[in-house]
Amino acid sequence: MSGNAFKINGFKGSAVASGLKKDGELDLALIYSEREAVASGVFTTNRVKAAPVLLSQRNIKNGRIKAIVVNSGNANACTGNAGLQNARTTSRLVAENLGIEPGEVLVASTGVIGAQLDMDLISKAMPDLTKGLSSEGIPRVAQAMMTTDSFPKISQFEGKFDGRPYKILGIAKGAGMIMPDMATMLCFVLTDLYLDAKTLGRAVSAAVESSFNRISVDGDTSTNDMVLVLANGRTESSALPLGDLEKFNKGLTRVMTELATMIVRDGEGATKVVHVEVKGAATTEDALTAARTVANSCLVKTALYGQDPNWGRIMAALGRSGILMQEDKICIWIDGIIIVEGGLGTGEMAEKEAADKMTHQEFVLTIDLQQGQYEDRIITCDLTHEYITINADYRT
Amino acid sequence: MSGNAFKINGFKGSAVASGLKKDGELDLALIYSEREAVASGVFTTNRVKAAPVLLSQRNIKNGRIKAIVVNSGNANACTGNAGLQNARTTSRLVAENLGIEPGEVLVASTGVIGAQLDMDLISKAMPDLTKGLSSEGIPRVAQAMMTTDSFPKISQFEGKFDGRPYKILGIAKGAGMIMPDMATMLCFVLTDLYLDAKTLGRAVSAAVESSFNRISVDGDTSTNDMVLVLANGRTESSALPLGDLEKFNKGLTRVMTELATMIVRDGEGATKVVHVEVKGAATTEDALTAARTVANSCLVKTALYGQDPNWGRIMAALGRSGILMQEDKICIWIDGIIIVEGGLGTGEMAEKEAADKMTHQEFVLTIDLQQGQYEDRIITCDLTHEYITINADYRT
Repeated sequence: MSGNAFKINGFKGSAVASGLKKDGELDLALIYSEREAVASGVFTTNRVKAAPVLLSQRNIKNGRIKAIVVNSGNANACTGNAGLQNARTTSRLVAENLGIEPGEVLVASTGVIGAQLDMDLISKAMPDLTKGLSSEGIPRVAQAMMTTDSFPKISQFEGKFDGRPYKILGIAKGAGMIMPDMATMLCFVLTDLYLDAKTLGRAVSAAVESSFNRISVDGDTSTNDMVLVLANGRTESSALPLGDLEKFNKGLTRVMTELATMIVRDGEGATKVVHVEVKGAATTEDALTAARTVANSCLVKTALYGQDPNWGRIMAALGRSGILMQEDKICIWIDGIIIVEGGLGTGEMAEKEAADKMTHQEFVLTIDLQQGQYEDRIITCDLTHEYITINADYRT
Repeated sequence: MSGNAFKINGFKGSAVASGLKKDGELDLALIYSEREAVASGVFTTNRVKAAPVLLSQRNIKNGRIKAIVVNSGNANACTGNAGLQNARTTSRLVAENLGIEPGEVLVASTGVIGAQLDMDLISKAMPDLTKGLSSEGIPRVAQAMMTTDSFPKISQFEGKFDGRPYKILGIAKGAGMIMPDMATMLCFVLTDLYLDAKTLGRAVSAAVESSFNRISVDGDTSTNDMVLVLANGRTESSALPLGDLEKFNKGLTRVMTELATMIVRDGEGATKVVHVEVKGAATTEDALTAARTVANSCLVKTALYGQDPNWGRIMAALGRSGILMQEDKICIWIDGIIIVEGGLGTGEMAEKEAADKMTHQEFVLTIDLQQGQYEDRIITCDLTHEYITINADYRT
């Protein structure tokens, strides 16, 4: 799809190379909403929160937002009071250049940790950044916030309400649940539909829960994670009727799930995307715990890389997850090939067929616990030599 | 030290190549106590338990044990009723050949999962195995139970009670918390001191808690883990006086800690042993949780491999661990070099010095939370290319 396809009414984007990244690549970007947008955000649960997280959490409480500014190359995390002051200064610089209030600006950062932002660079780049705003600039924002990402992540949904079309346009970055030095997961979603803050908040929580909270790259969570959603209400309307709201929720979930899957596909060193599906769990918590434990196991993830249907490692992960289970009831499939039935292997031929399926870049690992009716899933990737290379060598 | 040094009164060892391992290496071993020994065991908490774990848990309840039989090459895990029957048959074959009761035999297995034991091989090897018993055979047992281990693990402690010397002799295997296909962690400790079952049980629980439960290779736990301790009471005595019991407990803990450290040093692909020490925690649970979360983080472990004092990853791990903490109180040292003070980096020079320390094969990572008075530690290793190679290629 061409970059031009990723436009949305009432929003503009811009990106520049400020010098925060040493290589001269885009590293400072801005999203601008011509009207005050209703905003909703989900932030990292890590107790160590980066300065931009603390500031954006505060500003989003105002409810009305006109800009998101994001930099790569520096996470502004573990930077103390000076870091918080720099995040504030960034929001003030954006506000001054756009003629808006600092409280209407959300700030996000990603990159190296523990170093203070070079505010001279940001200050100098600000006029060009704001002047560069264009309705075709959103894909450049996606590009500017990349760190070890190998491709920019964009997804959109087109809907109709009251006979008029609307869009949900999302961009994201993040090639690890926690990127090296917390370069992290960021996602910004824009819609030109109108939703009140409460309705939008609910929609965002639900969509994040079933998308970004259902992926795993390395089991770490970051200090800088944030998902920000702006609804600018250009397609002016009152509250959405239930049916239309459901369609919006589905669209939002689809955009976020696409972005989340792209993040896994671009996982550090990843060569495979694997959908770990657990069914037949005794409780909803058990279903998620089982899926997460299997999806995060280093031994399972190296076996995925080795294209080895090594179901013993899956059984062992289930066994230590603490869920209700009986070994002799468990069944396991790889893309429909049953490799474990009643807790026992189904033989070499099945394993060979499963190994064939595992040569694909994307496949499904299904586990039936036969304890109850609950199910859940996690999208994960394999653990590879390249992951080690990226993470052992990042700062050197 | 020569193998002969590792002898202990009243115990014999033997090992043969039965053919369970394809390469003709030692794979079936026996420890024999000439007298009934008081026995104590600690078994895996994984809900998927291998057949030998289930059988040994039952037999050890008898309290008096005369033999431990162990095979490598096959874990006898996820093998259902047939697997349990095979474990029983193994104990019966040992008992018949030694003229003892099957209930006096403990069974341990390590190796490939999900395949049934070849009982013909075990049956055929049994006469040679029992005939080969010798007071100099314990080191051969340590060798026979290796899987991906690169060296046999033996440690001993010599004490005195009532003017007479006694020994604590331990052997172990395991180059991962869970080995590929659960080849797992096994540890057998022998002493010629007398302890009643209750006293021995307490001593073993305490020693395991501060040794094997304080190491981490990849955060997985196995279906086959077991620690078995036999006290044959050759140095006949009544209950130990408190002072002597304390000395025994210290000796037991030292032997187990040495073995545990050897397991980490021999961790799959590991190039470094790192002691993660947490102090100043608000509770004893917080201290352990913090140490464990840092020690298990893939990002921390790849930074250890990269010899990169990447303290942001340590802060992030602490932040997601759920413990009580304040970012601006945290201090972090590498072998005495302070790299974080009050939550902020101490600068490039300190990081350079710390990076120098990290070139060593063993160093200490200290974290002071400044929340309270509790402390704990975990011994861990780095996560390397070789770990991926071992675990992605194991079965192929």
